[in-house]
Amino acid sequence: MKILLVGASGTLGQAVAATLGTHHQLIRAGRHGGDAQVDLTDDASVQGLFARIGPVDAVIATTGRLHFGPLADMSPTQFNLGLQDKLLGQVRLALVAQHHLNNGGSITLTSGIVGAQPIRDGANATAVNAALEGFVRGAACELLPRGLRINVVSPNVLVESLDDYGAYFPGFEAVTAQRASLAYQRSVEGVQSGQVFNVW
Amino acid sequence: MKILLVGASGTLGQAVAATLGTHHQLIRAGRHGGDAQVDLTDDASVQGLFARIGPVDAVIATTGRLHFGPLADMSPTQFNLGLQDKLLGQVRLALVAQHHLNNGGSITLTSGIVGAQPIRDGANATAVNAALEGFVRGAACELLPRGLRINVVSPNVLVESLDDYGAYFPGFEAVTAQRASLAYQRSVEGVQSGQVFNVW
Repeated sequence: MKILLVGASGTLGQAVAATLGTHHQLIRAGRHGGDAQVDLTDDASVQGLFARIGPVDAVIATTGRLHFGPLADMSPTQFNLGLQDKLLGQVRLALVAQHHLNNGGSITLTSGIVGAQPIRDGANATAVNAALEGFVRGAACELLPRGLRINVVSPNVLVESLDDYGAYFPGFEAVTAQRASLAYQRSVEGVQSGQVFNVW
Repeated sequence: MKILLVGASGTLGQAVAATLGTHHQLIRAGRHGGDAQVDLTDDASVQGLFARIGPVDAVIATTGRLHFGPLADMSPTQFNLGLQDKLLGQVRLALVAQHHLNNGGSITLTSGIVGAQPIRDGANATAVNAALEGFVRGAACELLPRGLRINVVSPNVLVESLDDYGAYFPGFEAVTAQRASLAYQRSVEGVQSGQVFNVW
């Protein structure tokens, strides 16, 4: 398959690339570097990416920024950062990608365990991740008659990220990026749609 | 209790006002009319509302616009309408309200059955409603140590709205606004927090 992977340079993206790159044609995309550059917060940038690379069999997003901070200090503007970046960024990719997928193609987005299991300072992350899972639940119903699939992977905190984020995840059972990458393979090569693949 | 009800002139808001107004002091707010005017898409407007009315014991939102339309035609800008209005509007109200609640106070937001049960043209609604439920799940954990509560009510399609929206809800068991209003009473007068009260 020809697969577009947005967020390829991240910890998770690198692991997904390693898992899928052995037997698929990968287009590694990111804000900077990689095979192709794209800014998911910009309609024209996403449209331009597909104009350059042509139709694909699968699209994967492993990227998106959130706001972390105490609820007591959180402003609507800070909350909107996560809405505009991780949420609308991945949704924008999916909305554009639906018109550039070959028959039987799929879209795989990324939420995270915090969508279901709140952490300190994580209200924005819980909302955004839950929204991505909701979007996939709704979008799958409309992609189904067109023979297209969409899923979302919800990883636990990554072992590779524990130095930076471990303090926010007391008692969470961290998973390796390699283990999380298997869920992307299930989504891309499997048959399910509208699923949240929890890696936890 | 002194209760701020935003969206008081809507079908659901009127029913909530009827249920709670018999034994509480209600401040009926909306974009136009009512006891107080407020635009939930505007920080200054929400701040100004609380400056005028002073501390309250409970805040309820029964308002917010979404984008409905086929996924195949949906633009990121259309999707963002629901993010900015129903989602960020209610979140903005909650973020500001947390600083104007009396001890033991509560916030009650409104999602909807489409968050869990997708309908045709409803991908934006599913995402936004799921996000509101996620926000409440996360925010409850941070409000708990401060003795404050937050919940969200998820009503089925309303009997009163069937003429307008019934075609989108085939086989859904419509509920009266009066029945849905009981869930707001449970949230305001009860003891639970972080809950989704499904009225379906």
